[in-house]
Amino acid sequence: MITQQACPFDIALLHHPVRNKNGETIGSAVTNLDLHDIARCARTYGVKQYYVATPYTDQFKLIEEIVEHWQNGHGARANPERKEALAIVRPMPGLDEIIDDIIVRYGKKPLLVATSARPQTDKIGYQELRTHLHDDRTPVLLIFGTAHGLAPEIMNRADKRLAPIQGNSTYNHLSVRSAASIILDRLLGTER
Amino acid sequence: MITQQACPFDIALLHHPVRNKNGETIGSAVTNLDLHDIARCARTYGVKQYYVATPYTDQFKLIEEIVEHWQNGHGARANPERKEALAIVRPMPGLDEIIDDIIVRYGKKPLLVATSARPQTDKIGYQELRTHLHDDRTPVLLIFGTAHGLAPEIMNRADKRLAPIQGNSTYNHLSVRSAASIILDRLLGTER
Repeated sequence: MITQQACPFDIALLHHPVRNKNGETIGSAVTNLDLHDIARCARTYGVKQYYVATPYTDQFKLIEEIVEHWQNGHGARANPERKEALAIVRPMPGLDEIIDDIIVRYGKKPLLVATSARPQTDKIGYQELRTHLHDDRTPVLLIFGTAHGLAPEIMNRADKRLAPIQGNSTYNHLSVRSAASIILDRLLGTER
Repeated sequence: MITQQACPFDIALLHHPVRNKNGETIGSAVTNLDLHDIARCARTYGVKQYYVATPYTDQFKLIEEIVEHWQNGHGARANPERKEALAIVRPMPGLDEIIDDIIVRYGKKPLLVATSARPQTDKIGYQELRTHLHDDRTPVLLIFGTAHGLAPEIMNRADKRLAPIQGNSTYNHLSVRSAASIILDRLLGTER
């Protein structure tokens, strides 16, 4: 049972490059509840920063406006707990800029761990990643994809690919909000 | 590690009676993504039926229309996987009707297990409930609340109250979509 992390741990949600249902690489649209649900969950599990990446200026601005509403607008006054969760959301153009930011924050390049619903080669298991979080000082960036998941270029670029979630059926189509919640609990939850 | 359930296991999402932020008992509005996210997760973990309860006729009709769109409408053709998930959603007026339906389906009153983010008296832990699912033949109905959680009358009526999710911070404001995902993984997940 791990209650303390030795290393910084951040998460990222990429809207590009991701796959559509035909397996083509696309950019997806920002979804309001992806920001809220994943920020609330990340905050619950002590994640320091929740990067939300899109290369599109209007979508980037949408993220900023949502965060602003809950940090300084009416939302902040109406729901202080939501303000606290959204405080960890940080819009970014893409993965390169996220890595740069982590290097500035921690002085070290993070271990990139990509997530996917598909079987992976050279995968890291949950217990193994928990052990890293507990014993290693290298920062970890856990990367989630929107739409039909991260594009192959991100999966290949990652240092590790996290084992896909196994339910107990052959059905395997969780929302990214559910997948992120389950993965954060598996990696950082203190009660099993 | 439990891969087979001995007993039927269903879940319910109640929109009434639930609490608002002032602790008053209210009825809440149906949220489209509560149907989708929780149905997809429940389907992944092999849950048989996902009851969604509201006493309000217009809201009941809204659930029926959403399910219909994904069962027989455009959604069913556009996204067969979503069709498969939404197939387990069943609108109900309230908890009494859900219990009646379970008695008809299984010939036995279910063990009612309520969920909450608050500390509980006479609570059941995750391992204990996993053991029940594995060893006992009494059906289990796991009950989730919308808004600020199930009203006291439901918490008190339940046979058991599931231990709240512990993250690793003092922040404790998960969406019901995240909470349901984490709880289903803790109870029914096969890989830890």
